[in-house]
Amino acid sequence: MKINGRHYRTIWPVGDDAVEVIDQTKLPHRFEILTLRSAADCARAIATMIVRGAPLIGTTAAYGIALAMRDNASDAALDRAHDLLLATRPTAINLRWALKRMCDALRNHPHAERAAIAWREAAAVCDEDVETCRSIGEHGLKILREAAAKKHGAPLNILTHCNAGWLATVDWGTALAPIYRAQDEGIATHVWVDETRPRNQGASLTAFELGAHGVPHTIIADNAGGHYMQAGRVDLCIVGTDRVTANGDVANKIGTYLKALAAKDNAVPFYVALPSSTIDWQLHAGRDIPIEERSADELLKMTGRLPDGGLATVEIAAPGSPGANPAFDVTPARLVTGFITERGVCLASEEGLRSLFPPGNRQSAIGNR
Amino acid sequence: MKINGRHYRTIWPVGDDAVEVIDQTKLPHRFEILTLRSAADCARAIATMIVRGAPLIGTTAAYGIALAMRDNASDAALDRAHDLLLATRPTAINLRWALKRMCDALRNHPHAERAAIAWREAAAVCDEDVETCRSIGEHGLKILREAAAKKHGAPLNILTHCNAGWLATVDWGTALAPIYRAQDEGIATHVWVDETRPRNQGASLTAFELGAHGVPHTIIADNAGGHYMQAGRVDLCIVGTDRVTANGDVANKIGTYLKALAAKDNAVPFYVALPSSTIDWQLHAGRDIPIEERSADELLKMTGRLPDGGLATVEIAAPGSPGANPAFDVTPARLVTGFITERGVCLASEEGLRSLFPPGNRQSAIGNR
Repeated sequence: MKINGRHYRTIWPVGDDAVEVIDQTKLPHRFEILTLRSAADCARAIATMIVRGAPLIGTTAAYGIALAMRDNASDAALDRAHDLLLATRPTAINLRWALKRMCDALRNHPHAERAAIAWREAAAVCDEDVETCRSIGEHGLKILREAAAKKHGAPLNILTHCNAGWLATVDWGTALAPIYRAQDEGIATHVWVDETRPRNQGASLTAFELGAHGVPHTIIADNAGGHYMQAGRVDLCIVGTDRVTANGDVANKIGTYLKALAAKDNAVPFYVALPSSTIDWQLHAGRDIPIEERSADELLKMTGRLPDGGLATVEIAAPGSPGANPAFDVTPARLVTGFITERGVCLASEEGLRSLFPPGNRQSAIGNR
Repeated sequence: MKINGRHYRTIWPVGDDAVEVIDQTKLPHRFEILTLRSAADCARAIATMIVRGAPLIGTTAAYGIALAMRDNASDAALDRAHDLLLATRPTAINLRWALKRMCDALRNHPHAERAAIAWREAAAVCDEDVETCRSIGEHGLKILREAAAKKHGAPLNILTHCNAGWLATVDWGTALAPIYRAQDEGIATHVWVDETRPRNQGASLTAFELGAHGVPHTIIADNAGGHYMQAGRVDLCIVGTDRVTANGDVANKIGTYLKALAAKDNAVPFYVALPSSTIDWQLHAGRDIPIEERSADELLKMTGRLPDGGLATVEIAAPGSPGANPAFDVTPARLVTGFITERGVCLASEEGLRSLFPPGNRQSAIGNR
């Protein structure tokens, strides 16, 4: 994707001993690039959400393993890097998937070869993520094309929650990939961007992305989506996900469940876009997904631009009042119209997922059963 | 209610030619009192949300008429003040109710008597609001007492959206009145306070109120309530309303509808507390309620405290991205467990409302039919 006319991925290697990433905690106020030189750097970047989004968390972890192998390619070092990176965030399953893939690729090779193998494998994880997201875009495009045909030239109104765009992946995005493809095809869309409290990934990242690519959009409070659905002003919803369980339940950014309820109540199609690395075949249902609790400061403080262009963090809530900050919720499969994956679109059910990803043919899945 | 040990109402007369109000745009950062000396002052205070909350909007408008009569007690001046105040906010029906009550009380009296009559009538509107809210508290208390009995000593977890407390009325509040009464009775409660974007009335006003009165509470993102309901951590919801139509549909702060959907999906009782002046008997259904659109700046900018104690306003969203800001949504009656009114609790339906407020016995209603 392009920023000021230059093509960027969200993560890229620099030589063979560092990677660079866009510091997403600074967006949309500053476009800054950070260099990560170790597994610890990568772990910190994931934990502090310098990088975020399930696919990008996975690819950053893959490079974390590769950087660890530069320093020390022993089994013990591999295990340490694995555990350090795995502990950063509990909900996104892509993290576990990428770490397992890296360890599987390295375990049976001599220590001396591991650094080079790991570097190539991490690059492959990134390239495959781009290809996967491009495919998600193609399959989702068909849905948008059909929906747009019913609008007779009026823009197709799509609601999304959080950021599941280019910035959440290596390139293209998941939920936003079909929208970018539609834009390329000249299909008129307009995106309702949920602000996505408490970290505002919608207002800061999704709006930034869509703006950079000329996609018409409007930021709304998370509270507003149901009202717009009641008013017939949302044609469909597309969101990403951090983990889908074998039965089709969807963990995604806190508040997704509320939008899915409103979509159901108003007969608005509700799609979830995901690479198959986001499917957790080992968990049968969403109630078993660990939900990350983050600092209440994310809720009680807010950073933004002052009139002079400087940044400031202000406390917005009543002094002394405590806050709580669960980062994800679980949307039951019954509220999801379909999954948009790299292999096509399927129903949000065990049968649906198995129709595209039968046991034994799960290219990138963990926990085959 | 008490602030730092001193009892306050939200609006009170000073002599016979001014009223004072708490400037709610400054809370929770500053506790400042403003003097209103004219109908124009009152209209500005309502439009800019220095005062807000359906009942307090109504009482402020009543004093606006009274202040207008001090200056000029002609029919033309009365009509001008009425129209000026009515135009401030379109959704809260209490505004129309209070203005009609004031005009009805004045119309058939000589001009020379109008100022004194209006002053007494506005004071009566305030006193009745206090009494009404106290009654709502008593009737709601029975619901809380029954629910608490099932908790075997564990705190009763109540979720509320926006601010329908003391600050939204003259005293006591609507949704929060039963909670304050429960607190007085020694019933253990804990309130989940929806932040209530975009103006944060939950994080700023409700948390401030509850904190001032020692009620345990936790601020959460508006996105989080559904998750807590799924987890069994919400025993019931109580919200206020700006207008209830004859069939029991409920206009309230944007986002209320999403919480009502989640409550229904998780079998959590969802109550709406209201004075009967909030019932619009003329409108049959919620789809006919005008929904106020406010400035997108309320969404895209945020004011808070800097580390040095000063206040600053920061822009939080992607530069150049537009926003939209509908202030209310409509919750269908089918999602509401019951109404808590000054006359008792009833079902959210035309029959339910008529059982408590039969035609001909609607003490304070407009549009009897």
